[in-house]
Amino acid sequence: MSAKRKRILLTLGDVAGIGPEIVARAWPQLVARCDPLVVGDVEVMRRALREVGSEAAIGEALGDVKQLPVLQATAVDLRGVAPGRVTAEGGRAAYDFLCRAIDMAMAGQADAIVTAPLHKEGLKAAGLHHPGHTEILAERTGTEHFAMVLWGGGIAVAHVTLHTALRDVFARLSPDAVLEKIRLLDALIPRLTGGRARIGVAALNPHAGDGGLFGDEEERIITPAVQKAAAEGIDATGPWPSDTLFVRALRGEFDGVVAMYHDQGHIAMKLRCGWDLVNITAGLPIVRTSVAHGTAYDIAGRGMADDASLVAAVEAAIRLADNS
Amino acid sequence: MSAKRKRILLTLGDVAGIGPEIVARAWPQLVARCDPLVVGDVEVMRRALREVGSEAAIGEALGDVKQLPVLQATAVDLRGVAPGRVTAEGGRAAYDFLCRAIDMAMAGQADAIVTAPLHKEGLKAAGLHHPGHTEILAERTGTEHFAMVLWGGGIAVAHVTLHTALRDVFARLSPDAVLEKIRLLDALIPRLTGGRARIGVAALNPHAGDGGLFGDEEERIITPAVQKAAAEGIDATGPWPSDTLFVRALRGEFDGVVAMYHDQGHIAMKLRCGWDLVNITAGLPIVRTSVAHGTAYDIAGRGMADDASLVAAVEAAIRLADNS
Repeated sequence: MSAKRKRILLTLGDVAGIGPEIVARAWPQLVARCDPLVVGDVEVMRRALREVGSEAAIGEALGDVKQLPVLQATAVDLRGVAPGRVTAEGGRAAYDFLCRAIDMAMAGQADAIVTAPLHKEGLKAAGLHHPGHTEILAERTGTEHFAMVLWGGGIAVAHVTLHTALRDVFARLSPDAVLEKIRLLDALIPRLTGGRARIGVAALNPHAGDGGLFGDEEERIITPAVQKAAAEGIDATGPWPSDTLFVRALRGEFDGVVAMYHDQGHIAMKLRCGWDLVNITAGLPIVRTSVAHGTAYDIAGRGMADDASLVAAVEAAIRLADNS
Repeated sequence: MSAKRKRILLTLGDVAGIGPEIVARAWPQLVARCDPLVVGDVEVMRRALREVGSEAAIGEALGDVKQLPVLQATAVDLRGVAPGRVTAEGGRAAYDFLCRAIDMAMAGQADAIVTAPLHKEGLKAAGLHHPGHTEILAERTGTEHFAMVLWGGGIAVAHVTLHTALRDVFARLSPDAVLEKIRLLDALIPRLTGGRARIGVAALNPHAGDGGLFGDEEERIITPAVQKAAAEGIDATGPWPSDTLFVRALRGEFDGVVAMYHDQGHIAMKLRCGWDLVNITAGLPIVRTSVAHGTAYDIAGRGMADDASLVAAVEAAIRLADNS
């Protein structure tokens, strides 16, 4: 644990979304906690500060509430990008921001990256075929074992599968895949909570398969993974029926949950935590957290966006960097 | 709407579970609202009254807080059934109670059935291979189109598939299956809320398939069903990503949600509503509601069971019977 103020890189994501606005709005709260540096576009950020009526201006100094330092991290001309519209320019720039931030963090020039949302259609329009941040981060840092984790309400939820059709989940589940996420969660949670991780592993089928009546993945895949984890000394139990597991975890019975697919974890956490939810990539050689919402094109540019998830993401990043 | 007190049949379910206890505990609240009649076993109910320290005794009169009328609805000897243990006797008796209640309701001798939980393993031990109440009700009433609905937090959630392995969901989804549940929900909701139903239909895949990137069921199956429903004048929209749909619905944007599979609906509703959740079978020729929890074998016979779901189930049954 270090008391030194952390250097946090804030990537703006797709500038047609609410990223620039929430960074501008949250600025005083962020500067109170760390030394943030925006990795984005100077002109976009200047406009965002104006739109939220900020007292800060683009500046050089770190840790000053009146100055917002921006690293110009793209050569793309973003002047034609309007709020709420998919563009190749917005997609390409979001990718540039992220790559620059990754390279800086990997080089030890920052303690953590906190990302604002990008838009998959924008990436696609720019000829980039990554489904999201997590996959780009894993690729660029050369990470093989990683997990998308939602952190909120005092629990961390790791997903075994993520951006894949539900139909394709079955082929991607294996004892090793489940075990890997259990291990990643077991390593991550103490850095967030300071305590040991009690992990509940979700079943795939309703009623955890009801003794084999509704599917056998519990017996074939999940139970063996839980047993191996327990044999390694990890406090993991399950598979538990997912409709009661999240209730129990959020009441304090578990610190972490391993979810088998995207919506299993996301339905519970979005419902419980609202904007106070953080996305963490576990397993990377660098610290990376993110807001847990999307670009919110429908409200972008209208001054309505809530910055709570960004503030929570920065707090989680500081905690993880302190316990690296 | 009728002001007449409704005759509500309460089936005890598996007597090794918490059914008898919650009926005994809730008795004063139930009698205040309707004329309940227990369809079960006299000796079991006598013991449950004693265990919760009730002031009521087994009696004949309807609508009297001091008298609890029980229709002896099984010939099975239940004296050997201990709390928290699967037995063929408990399973058979639960089936007997339900069948008797169904027959009475079908004959117009009652206004509604409210069921306490049964245990699938008990049914199985008794040689009965129904996965649960819903399927028995549909079979015995000769109902082809029905839906398991969760009602709580001001919204009703109908499930297109229910007690089936997640792997088997895909073969059971079709535009007709989705449309059928939309229609059932559209007919049910006004009887619960008194207002018109605004229905949000859930996507199957994460991010609603993200434009076809993660699965095509949205385009092939769900969208055509929503369009047909809208053409029939039903206020149905979707498919919506399920992780934000429940947040929106529970905030008041929708009155009903159509979920594609068991856990999609159950994760959200159990998390949000806890014990204050009701299970309704839509589409039957009779009114049937149920507690939304299981037999809770782990706490059965220990005097700890919460009767809130039973009281809510009776309230929903009265409302539906009033608006039949």
